[in-house]
Amino acid sequence: MAAPSTPLLKDELDIVIPTIRNLDFLEMWRPFFEQYHLIIVQDGDPSKVIKVPEGFDYELYNRNDINRILGPKASCISFKDSACRCFGYMVSKKKYIYTIDDDCFVAKDPSGKDINALQQHIENLLSPSTPLFFNTLYDPYREGADFVRGYPFSLREGVPTAVSHGLWLNIPDYDAPTQLVKPHAVMTIPKGTIFPMCGMNLGFNRDLIGPAMYFGLMGDGQPIGRYDDMWAGWCTKVICDHLNLGVKTGLPYIWHSKASNPFVNLKKEYKGIYWQEEIIPFFQAVTLPKECTTVQQCYLELAKQVKAKLSATDPYFTKLADAMVTWIEAWDELNPTGDVAAKLPNGGVAK
Amino acid sequence: MAAPSTPLLKDELDIVIPTIRNLDFLEMWRPFFEQYHLIIVQDGDPSKVIKVPEGFDYELYNRNDINRILGPKASCISFKDSACRCFGYMVSKKKYIYTIDDDCFVAKDPSGKDINALQQHIENLLSPSTPLFFNTLYDPYREGADFVRGYPFSLREGVPTAVSHGLWLNIPDYDAPTQLVKPHAVMTIPKGTIFPMCGMNLGFNRDLIGPAMYFGLMGDGQPIGRYDDMWAGWCTKVICDHLNLGVKTGLPYIWHSKASNPFVNLKKEYKGIYWQEEIIPFFQAVTLPKECTTVQQCYLELAKQVKAKLSATDPYFTKLADAMVTWIEAWDELNPTGDVAAKLPNGGVAK
Repeated sequence: MAAPSTPLLKDELDIVIPTIRNLDFLEMWRPFFEQYHLIIVQDGDPSKVIKVPEGFDYELYNRNDINRILGPKASCISFKDSACRCFGYMVSKKKYIYTIDDDCFVAKDPSGKDINALQQHIENLLSPSTPLFFNTLYDPYREGADFVRGYPFSLREGVPTAVSHGLWLNIPDYDAPTQLVKPHAVMTIPKGTIFPMCGMNLGFNRDLIGPAMYFGLMGDGQPIGRYDDMWAGWCTKVICDHLNLGVKTGLPYIWHSKASNPFVNLKKEYKGIYWQEEIIPFFQAVTLPKECTTVQQCYLELAKQVKAKLSATDPYFTKLADAMVTWIEAWDELNPTGDVAAKLPNGGVAK
Repeated sequence: MAAPSTPLLKDELDIVIPTIRNLDFLEMWRPFFEQYHLIIVQDGDPSKVIKVPEGFDYELYNRNDINRILGPKASCISFKDSACRCFGYMVSKKKYIYTIDDDCFVAKDPSGKDINALQQHIENLLSPSTPLFFNTLYDPYREGADFVRGYPFSLREGVPTAVSHGLWLNIPDYDAPTQLVKPHAVMTIPKGTIFPMCGMNLGFNRDLIGPAMYFGLMGDGQPIGRYDDMWAGWCTKVICDHLNLGVKTGLPYIWHSKASNPFVNLKKEYKGIYWQEEIIPFFQAVTLPKECTTVQQCYLELAKQVKAKLSATDPYFTKLADAMVTWIEAWDELNPTGDVAAKLPNGGVAK
């Protein structure tokens, strides 16, 4: 797939990349990313110099920058965990965010062409979602697709899409028959259903859902790591459901060449694997009051419920709930006109 | 794809076909269907002779047979609408049902091979479903698939699959690139989400959900047609959710060469299109009491609620609710040992 001659949303989208290494992986993405602005969030040792390939337009923040910009509120941004990426969402001034890990490469479609993942995310975000009724033929707004018989006409307008969750292949060169087994679909995750969100190939509408995209307290000094995207996904989905916004999952694929060590990962994830057995029922049962009509209000209410109901599982959740509040304070400080509610099509009135 | 040398579930599955014409379409399905038993439900004029190609093992019921077997209870079986197919579910004594319309043909996969739809349905029905948590990589039990990171281990066992809902292509010979756009996925429909079920390419576990697969009152003498499968799908999904059973949708594809006239169809569907705007919210909100632990009990409770809450929409729903009760009475009469609850893995105790 060639890069579109005029990149979509060029002035309305930032690409956020958390990293600890030189960004050689960008070479492969050059035709698709070069005309967008990058926000690089450097994790770990701030004295290390990260090399960015020539020709890319970027800003880079290391830990010293984060501490300087946020002051004491920097405590809500994780260190030594890719959760630090959410700082990039906060400093962006754009309407859309695409975030990608530095061990993700361009996947090929079964005909051998490079998949422009970013373009597919934009298509997902610019077309409505259908969380209120299930379409068995998947995303009805895709070219060549439609609503099935029996789909209520009153719901065919859909709702605004807030999140586009892309998938991944683990082997660079699947042959065509193997690729065919991989689901080739985009679909809306139904209202009331939470999901395990992966942060390595993710697009979202910052105006609609940005303040909910907090990746939590992970890594250095925390009892848990690598649950940052899960946390953000659970919170985001609950708030999208409340505010009548859509989450799509499926295409685009990227190729994930895991840079992290599976044994180290297991140690980091250990507590998450136990805790999620209590966290997930919490999120499946949580309800937000009608008075919460902005993402910020929803998020603060969620923080309150996390503290009340999950602190018994581990004192960590008290700390996390406090960090959620700090995150919103920091967001509002950096985004003083960020009255997200006003940008919601329904004026932020929950259904 | 060649027919498997030993057909799966040969003695445990009936193929149910509603029809008004000679079953020439079976020629194309011969390699896949020939070793199974067929139950043909002849709709319309019972004096017409339906020709079945040589070599198929079948039983055929026309309207006279239905009236003779069910007596006054035959009133619950539709006439001049493919809804009559559910009579076949009732007279079957097998554990599994596959039902297909007579205008459905064998589709080809992108490599040009015939798709054995029945085999895929059986694979869907024999592997568990995951209605309690969403797997972004679709059916985790398919070959080459798995649970994603963040999928709770306590839920990886899944729940028994009651329904396999297959999709359709409308053009016989899609080229490969076009087929690739078609979603190649099987997934569980999440708990709490109802869906528009299509009856033309459908498998189900009769022991688990049979009595809920009533296709309603449609066609001759009724104000509505062609909503039979929708009705069955709404009822079935609500009951599956209550009894902790799974519904899968996606593969297999068949090729649908519509035999019906779209203008005639619109006339039949007209009221359904209006009514579904009230019916769907009803089904989205309905809850069944814990005391309902068998499919029959659930279905009778649903009939009661249909009568109480939908009769204001149209007196038709009073009649339909009564027919739902008659259907269960007829089912139990023909299936005297049909204590479906005892066959549920959890003894019919709803979660």
